Amino acid sequence: MIVALAGGVGAARMLRGIVAIANPSEVTAVVNTGDDTVMHGLHISPDLDTVTYTLAGKINPETGWGLVDETWSAMAELRAYSQGRMGWFNLGDRDLGTHLYRTSRLTEGATLTEVTAEIAARWGLGVRLLPMSDDRVETRVVVMEAGGAQEIGFQDYFVGRHHDVAVTEVRLAGIESASAGPDVLDCIDQADRIVICPSNPIVSIGPVLATGGIGAAVANRRDFTVAVSPIIAGKALKGPADRMLAALGHEASVVGVARMWAPFASALVIDELDAGRAGEVEAAGIRPIVAPTVMSGPDEAAALARVVLRARHETA
Amino acid sequence: MIVALAGGVGAARMLRGIVAIANPSEVTAVVNTGDDTVMHGLHISPDLDTVTYTLAGKINPETGWGLVDETWSAMAELRAYSQGRMGWFNLGDRDLGTHLYRTSRLTEGATLTEVTAEIAARWGLGVRLLPMSDDRVETRVVVMEAGGAQEIGFQDYFVGRHHDVAVTEVRLAGIESASAGPDVLDCIDQADRIVICPSNPIVSIGPVLATGGIGAAVANRRDFTVAVSPIIAGKALKGPADRMLAALGHEASVVGVARMWAPFASALVIDELDAGRAGEVEAAGIRPIVAPTVMSGPDEAAALARVVLRARHETA
Repeated sequence: MIVALAGGVGAARMLRGIVAIANPSEVTAVVNTGDDTVMHGLHISPDLDTVTYTLAGKINPETGWGLVDETWSAMAELRAYSQGRMGWFNLGDRDLGTHLYRTSRLTEGATLTEVTAEIAARWGLGVRLLPMSDDRVETRVVVMEAGGAQEIGFQDYFVGRHHDVAVTEVRLAGIESASAGPDVLDCIDQADRIVICPSNPIVSIGPVLATGGIGAAVANRRDFTVAVSPIIAGKALKGPADRMLAALGHEASVVGVARMWAPFASALVIDELDAGRAGEVEAAGIRPIVAPTVMSGPDEAAALARVVLRARHETA
Repeated sequence: MIVALAGGVGAARMLRGIVAIANPSEVTAVVNTGDDTVMHGLHISPDLDTVTYTLAGKINPETGWGLVDETWSAMAELRAYSQGRMGWFNLGDRDLGTHLYRTSRLTEGATLTEVTAEIAARWGLGVRLLPMSDDRVETRVVVMEAGGAQEIGFQDYFVGRHHDVAVTEVRLAGIESASAGPDVLDCIDQADRIVICPSNPIVSIGPVLATGGIGAAVANRRDFTVAVSPIIAGKALKGPADRMLAALGHEASVVGVARMWAPFASALVIDELDAGRAGEVEAAGIRPIVAPTVMSGPDEAAALARVVLRARHETA
């Protein structure tokens, strides 16, 4: 069994690579739900959807999120009603079907874990998707703005402000009382291989590890755990991970990532561009594996997956 | 000032006729919200939307409800997720924009009256639309089914069961504590003319009159109030009004309607097909006015509006 700790786009690509070389029925993704939000009355789970749509082969290639063959009628009307104040969190018409379904099922009393399984089943995913928790954990971001520090929701930061604002703190509201989702801890305990996907360490993987004993369970399986650095030559391929690491006192480099993941993983895959820093990674207490890590297509993703899964064998 | 008590389709057509011959800024519609429902997390106000879209010239001519130039992507996905269990309450993609906006504004703390005004303003309606109440009144229907009597929501009855099931009771949940919406009672008190539109007496006009003193206020202005019968030759043009009247102990005819509206209106417009029953209407205590009442197009609606507004002058 392979367990992957997952955020959004980077994790989705990593998982696509993993299922290309492993039996999907042996793969479980534990997905961040700290980015989840209720918008216009609808429960939206961005990372779960990105992973689901990507594995279904239905991710929108034009946007990198949402469904392929999408139309945008509902948002156009919403913007017209609100004179542009609403609709900045863009939801396609097909994509809305997912949020309507999820919201309906949650209202009916289903858990997020149950709904997620139903959505995955509809798309015929072989992979098992587990939300990190059925409890509400909300990633909150303190940003510096003209008026001073302000705490806002993650989507307000990430989409509303295009993550183009200084972050001084990230807080996980509800984390104290959140339990890991059903089976999450068991899956980690029994995994042959655990993969920390190349997602934002602070706001994608961080919430997963912080939730209800998941971090301790992964640390307990450190010998079986391999991480992939989302930072290449000091930069995130996409998103604010590099700036966020720096702002919160980490080094925005594979070495900073190594220091973060050393308690949880025994190996860290770093990009060839960072080969020169392998010694510092090693010194941080985690074995460096140098490989191409840019998953520009399915072949590159599968190649990286091969490195990641082989790495485990070498490690354990 | 003209005040119209309104349900959905019949009222929308009546209002279109009224604004064709009167200054829209002098027209206020008090609209039934007993049919409102929360579906998939969204607050849906079917009668308000039908009136709004009709007056905006944007009603979908193919369905008779919803917006013109509509697409149905969200519902298609919702049905696929739920294997057809959901999506029976069909919401077009453009129409969803309205529900997303309304739900967002209500979540922000706006009242339904405020949101309704904003939606009307976006479409440039000259007419003022007032929900009958900002409080939740929920029309519930007791139906006879194989398993016995069952109380269900109005949309479950009307759309879900295509109103093709015997009704034994209609109940307005929340009616005891609901107040009339802001300005509703004042508008009625100050109206020069009050029109009871040809909507379902039980489930469209009934809830309006039953809410927070509206019925008493209209009764107090009986001399200024004209009703239009939604029943023609014993049949409703559309919907279950005839069957519902009969099932709940009323006569399914203009005479039954006359008995219901006699306490509230001094005149009742009945169709030419019912001219032979004018004497019985008169005997019920309400002056009959015989006229064509089928609003098959704008001209017929305007002609009926002329009858209705003139009738008031003759009455008062």
